[in-house]
Amino acid sequence: MSDERTPPATRDQYVQFLPIGTRWADNDVYGHVNNVVYYAWFDTAVNRILTTHGLDIHQGPIIGLCVESGCRYHAPLAYPEDVEVGVRVAKVGRSSVRYELGVFRAGEARASGATGQATAAAEGFFVHVFVDRQTRRPSALPEPLATALRSLVR
Amino acid sequence: MSDERTPPATRDQYVQFLPIGTRWADNDVYGHVNNVVYYAWFDTAVNRILTTHGLDIHQGPIIGLCVESGCRYHAPLAYPEDVEVGVRVAKVGRSSVRYELGVFRAGEARASGATGQATAAAEGFFVHVFVDRQTRRPSALPEPLATALRSLVR
Amino acid sequence: MSDERTPPATRDQYVQFLPIGTRWADNDVYGHVNNVVYYAWFDTAVNRILTTHGLDIHQGPIIGLCVESGCRYHAPLAYPEDVEVGVRVAKVGRSSVRYELGVFRAGEARASGATGQATAAAEGFFVHVFVDRQTRRPSALPEPLATALRSLVR
Amino acid sequence: MSDERTPPATRDQYVQFLPIGTRWADNDVYGHVNNVVYYAWFDTAVNRILTTHGLDIHQGPIIGLCVESGCRYHAPLAYPEDVEVGVRVAKVGRSSVRYELGVFRAGEARASGATGQATAAAEGFFVHVFVDRQTRRPSALPEPLATALRSLVR
Repeated sequence: MSDERTPPATRDQYVQFLPIGTRWADNDVYGHVNNVVYYAWFDTAVNRILTTHGLDIHQGPIIGLCVESGCRYHAPLAYPEDVEVGVRVAKVGRSSVRYELGVFRAGEARASGATGQATAAAEGFFVHVFVDRQTRRPSALPEPLATALRSLVR
Repeated sequence: MSDERTPPATRDQYVQFLPIGTRWADNDVYGHVNNVVYYAWFDTAVNRILTTHGLDIHQGPIIGLCVESGCRYHAPLAYPEDVEVGVRVAKVGRSSVRYELGVFRAGEARASGATGQATAAAEGFFVHVFVDRQTRRPSALPEPLATALRSLVR
Repeated sequence: MSDERTPPATRDQYVQFLPIGTRWADNDVYGHVNNVVYYAWFDTAVNRILTTHGLDIHQGPIIGLCVESGCRYHAPLAYPEDVEVGVRVAKVGRSSVRYELGVFRAGEARASGATGQATAAAEGFFVHVFVDRQTRRPSALPEPLATALRSLVR
Repeated sequence: MSDERTPPATRDQYVQFLPIGTRWADNDVYGHVNNVVYYAWFDTAVNRILTTHGLDIHQGPIIGLCVESGCRYHAPLAYPEDVEVGVRVAKVGRSSVRYELGVFRAGEARASGATGQATAAAEGFFVHVFVDRQTRRPSALPEPLATALRSLVR
C-alpha cells in the first residue's frame, strides 16, 4: 500500500511450503483474516519443521523462544480459502535461527505481478533463540537440527 | 473417564469428514489441545459445509448463529498431529440445524475399541439458528441449503 | 430463541464474579463475540479461581482436565464491551468438579426480565477431572482446594 | 537476549495505558504467553482507543487495516498475571497511523533497570492504513480521530 515498499515476494524465494487450513475465527469483523493470525501460522509452520527434525516440544532439553517477529501485509485472505506458508532460513547461529516466511493462497501458481508469478499476501520473519528448558539460558542447536535448518537457507 | 458415559462414537456414525490442521497455539500449558479449540474446529467444519452449499458469510441475506453447543472429551490430541472432524446432521428445522460432530486422529482407521474401529477423541454438537442478517429474526433456510444439510442426516 | 428453553439465569444464581476484558479478535465476521470465545472465558475464570486457591498450573502434582462442557447463548456481546463471568460450583467430587457459569455485561445490574434483574447473555458448564500430572490418572483434590470450591456451591 | 539490541523501553515512553486481562489460552506449551498473543493485545488496545474516539467498527465509513507490525520480546509473561499495554503514536499521516506499544506487568511501577524504572516485557509497533469500508481505498482520517491520535504523540 506504499510506493516505498519492496515488492511482495514470489514463491521462488522460499524453500519449503507448508499447508495451513484457515478457520472460521481467523476472519475478523472486517471480513478477512486478522493480522494476528498470520503469526499463529508462522509459529505453526516453523514448529512443524522443527518437530519433523527432532525437536521434542513436550520433553526435549531445549525449547525455541521467539525474541522478535514482524510482518508486512500485502493483500487480504479470508476463511474458507486455504493458504500455504513458504519458509526459508536466513541465518542459523549457534543458538538462534532467523526464519523468513511468505503466505500464499493455496494452489496459486501464478498471478499478475511483473514476474508473472504469484506474490505473497504477507511476508514475515521470526527469530528463535534456543534455550535450555529448565534454566532458559541460550543453548547450542543440536547438530541434526542445525543441519536441517541450514538446508532451508536459500 | 466415567463408567456412566456412553462409549465414544465411531467413524461410521458420521457422514462427512473434514480435515483440520492443528496449530502450535492449539496446545495449552498441559501439552494437549485445549478444550476450547475443539469448538473452533466445529465452527470451521460446519461453516465450510455451509459455504460449499451456498452460504455467503460476507454478504448473504441470512447468517447462522450458534444458540447452543457442547462437547465431551474422551482422549487427548496434540499439535502437530492432524485431525478430521466427522459431521452428521441430527435435525433440520425451518430455520435451525443441529449438527453432531466427532473428532478423530487423521488417517486413523482402526483402534482397539470393542468394535475394532477408531473411536472419537471428542464428540460435540452445535445448534445453528439462521436469522436475517439485518433484523436478526429467524429466517427459513434456503431450500438448496436445507437439502444439502438433510443429506448429512444419518 | 425457543419457547422450550429455561429462562436465562440471573446474577443472584452465581457466587463469584470475575471480570473479563473483551478483545478485538473475540468478534467474528458477524460482528459479535464468537461462540467459541465464551469457553475461553470459562477456562480463564475457573483457572483463576483454582490458582488463587493454590493450584500450580506449571509445576503442581495435579492438573485439571476438561471432560465435558456446554453453553447456551441468549444474547449477543461484542468487543469493546467488558463482561463478567459468574461462577457457582454444582458439585465437588473426590477428583472432579462441575462448574456452572453465567456471562453478564460488566456493571449491568438490572435489565428488563420478569425478575427485574440482569439476565445472562450465555450460560455454560464445565467439568474438570483432576489427574496426576505424570500418569494422567484421576487424583483426589487437595483438601484446601476442595474446601474453597465447596464454598462456591450455591 | 542480544548485546546489539536497544534496551527495553520504560513506562515514561508511553502516553496512555490500557489494562489487559490474560487468559488461560494465552500460555502456550512452554508455560508463558505465546508470542502471537501480544499482537492480539496490540489490536485490542489500539482499537479500544479508536472506538473511544468515534471509530464505528460495525457500520462506520472507514476501517483501519494493519499493513505492518512487529514485536521484540524481552521477558516472559504468564497467565494469570495481568498486563498493561502502553501506547504512543509515532506518526499520524493523512490516512495512516503508526502506533508504538510496550507491554508491562500490571501495577509494576519500578524494576531493577539502570533507570530504576519498570521495563517493557515486549515492545511492538503497528501501522494502520484507514480505508473506505466498501472500496478499501485509502481514506483520510476524520479530523476528531486524527486530533485524538496526535494527542498520543510523545
